[in-house]
Amino acid sequence: MAECCPSKTNGSISAKHTLKKQLNASKLEFIQASIFRPVPEPGSAELWAQNVATDHMVTCRWTVDEGWEDPIIKPFGDLTISPLASCIHYATQCFEGMKIYRGFDGRLRLFRPDRNAKRLAMSAKRVSLPDFDPEQLVELIKALIRVDSKRWLPEPGSFRYIRPALIGTGRQLGVQIPKEATLLITMVCWPDFSSESPPGVQPRSDLRLLTSRNDTIRAWPGGFGYAKVGANYGPSFASHCEAQEAGYDQILWLLGEDGRVTEAGASNFFAVVRDEHTSKPLLLTAPLTDKVILDGVTRRSVLELIENRLADELEVREAKFTITDLEVASQKGLLLEAFVSGTAFFIKDVSTIRVGDRNIDLPKAQQHATRFGPMIKDWLKDIMFGTEDHVWGVIIDE
Amino acid sequence: MAECCPSKTNGSISAKHTLKKQLNASKLEFIQASIFRPVPEPGSAELWAQNVATDHMVTCRWTVDEGWEDPIIKPFGDLTISPLASCIHYATQCFEGMKIYRGFDGRLRLFRPDRNAKRLAMSAKRVSLPDFDPEQLVELIKALIRVDSKRWLPEPGSFRYIRPALIGTGRQLGVQIPKEATLLITMVCWPDFSSESPPGVQPRSDLRLLTSRNDTIRAWPGGFGYAKVGANYGPSFASHCEAQEAGYDQILWLLGEDGRVTEAGASNFFAVVRDEHTSKPLLLTAPLTDKVILDGVTRRSVLELIENRLADELEVREAKFTITDLEVASQKGLLLEAFVSGTAFFIKDVSTIRVGDRNIDLPKAQQHATRFGPMIKDWLKDIMFGTEDHVWGVIIDE
Repeated sequence: MAECCPSKTNGSISAKHTLKKQLNASKLEFIQASIFRPVPEPGSAELWAQNVATDHMVTCRWTVDEGWEDPIIKPFGDLTISPLASCIHYATQCFEGMKIYRGFDGRLRLFRPDRNAKRLAMSAKRVSLPDFDPEQLVELIKALIRVDSKRWLPEPGSFRYIRPALIGTGRQLGVQIPKEATLLITMVCWPDFSSESPPGVQPRSDLRLLTSRNDTIRAWPGGFGYAKVGANYGPSFASHCEAQEAGYDQILWLLGEDGRVTEAGASNFFAVVRDEHTSKPLLLTAPLTDKVILDGVTRRSVLELIENRLADELEVREAKFTITDLEVASQKGLLLEAFVSGTAFFIKDVSTIRVGDRNIDLPKAQQHATRFGPMIKDWLKDIMFGTEDHVWGVIIDE
Repeated sequence: MAECCPSKTNGSISAKHTLKKQLNASKLEFIQASIFRPVPEPGSAELWAQNVATDHMVTCRWTVDEGWEDPIIKPFGDLTISPLASCIHYATQCFEGMKIYRGFDGRLRLFRPDRNAKRLAMSAKRVSLPDFDPEQLVELIKALIRVDSKRWLPEPGSFRYIRPALIGTGRQLGVQIPKEATLLITMVCWPDFSSESPPGVQPRSDLRLLTSRNDTIRAWPGGFGYAKVGANYGPSFASHCEAQEAGYDQILWLLGEDGRVTEAGASNFFAVVRDEHTSKPLLLTAPLTDKVILDGVTRRSVLELIENRLADELEVREAKFTITDLEVASQKGLLLEAFVSGTAFFIKDVSTIRVGDRNIDLPKAQQHATRFGPMIKDWLKDIMFGTEDHVWGVIIDE
């Protein structure tokens, strides 16, 4: 049989391990771009295309024998990849989504980058990609930001998207753990999904969700729904497209015969219901315990802000709940609001959930003086753009 | 929200669709290699590395606006891929595994290539990649074989591996259906897993399986286990490695609390038990109905051969069965044999299945005059290498 494990193909791996180079941001080399490309206008079609990168990117190669080579910042451009590379056949790939914010004070901030870096290391492990020190990844991200933000992110109150990715680049068609990998960090123009619409599309601040069909499941206990791996995305695009063609924005992913609510599109999902007995509002969100949903950085921040600032007003129930629970609450007038959270879409109110041939319509904003989603969104925005000084907003000196 | 669907981003798609070019093998261009690389020796380490391709490869680009460009045969070499390409972030990728056989009569044969081509089209759909005419894919595969087989596959009774793959190559970080894709066909040196071992490894003709842990499953109903998509592979490598480190060859993937037997590694699994009541042998294999397992070409051929040649001797039960069923049968002395089937590993006998802290040991070959696995393997080999003239062995005129 094919030997898949580095420890089997290389008998002296444990001895060698200590000699292997670790990911080391202090060794970063820099090759300056000679051509600087045009920066898309705010709200432009180029921005909405989500495919315009800044002038540079970080790459770093890893091999099973030598470990991590010295990282490089170089002009953004195509990769050369073998047609036999593991990442294009076997989805040995994982990524992160982060944003870099230009604060209203003119300073650059990342939002809890340590969380993303640790999650990338966790995701890498799930698809047998190499380990690294998350702090070094954060340093590499900062380095890229320092190089490209003056030209690409000058405007206070704006942001760009950061995409770290780790892919298996070795020529390996065997069912084997990657023997080579490449870390990539790119910085990309990204629209503000939470408050804008593409050119020519009627702006709408709310989100309409379509529940997934019984025969299409995003993730499963024992699978890899908790990891940010490519394998969770491609297979979900068809359902996402189906939702959009039916006039909805995202799929609300259900699981199991009882219709457990898990995630919405690529975002975490929250519902606020009034407790029938205590009359107090209760925040429902799927738990991390069975590893079906992503441990979202925004999700975690939402829960921590509630704990710190709304403990008396809003009880959190991080536990399994079903679409029937939401329908029943709605029928009784107890469903107060629903929202999604994620880096790409930030926080966005849900207006409707389509379940089979029925709608769960959420109360409109004006009917409630206080809504938790928008309140938390504002708090987070204040941290991201430096209006509030907070440990989650990590300043990057230019 | 991001518009993910071609039909939404391009209003005139239905009108345009008729103008879109279809995959067309008759338009194939040919760029001859100028350097011819060394061909690995039979049984060499290069062969076992599964990463030596022949001199040429087929590529064909597709775009949502224009459809399929003219395919090209060109020298095998690296691809240039954008760091923002869909396939390296979102696992928009699928592939096939086939073999090209040099018969004992000196002629080249593919084994049921129509099946692989149709399955690639099916897999493509599952990850939102473009459709194509499977017959055109078969023609492209034949064209590559005709170019490279004289040098790379001269020896009667030998084979090479063919890897068609379709990957999403558009620069798209949005959660979107790929707007560009590339079809790749490569021909790769491949060891004979069914009867050989890597250099320096003790030859062993049997397979030792380790059952998957409860917390790690390969595929689930409503997922994509039935499609040959990259997303099924990368996340399984860690378990595969764990099995090898524990002294086993492959994982036997179980599903659910009752431990349903699904697949072994990347192969289909079969067990032969003696029916307690009729005393007749019974072949158990997981069903295709819930789309958890791959509809293997070898699996299907095994079942069809049994239907045609062993109908009176061996009853087939294509239905759910559990690891407990196998344990109980083993304890009663009713478990006669087990084997796996697949293109990469062909057909291989299973000698042991490890379940928790117990072994299910299969009877050794000499204890039974007739074993179905080896018999069917011989029949298939005869078809593949032209010893038997059969419609499944598709001759390629050079």
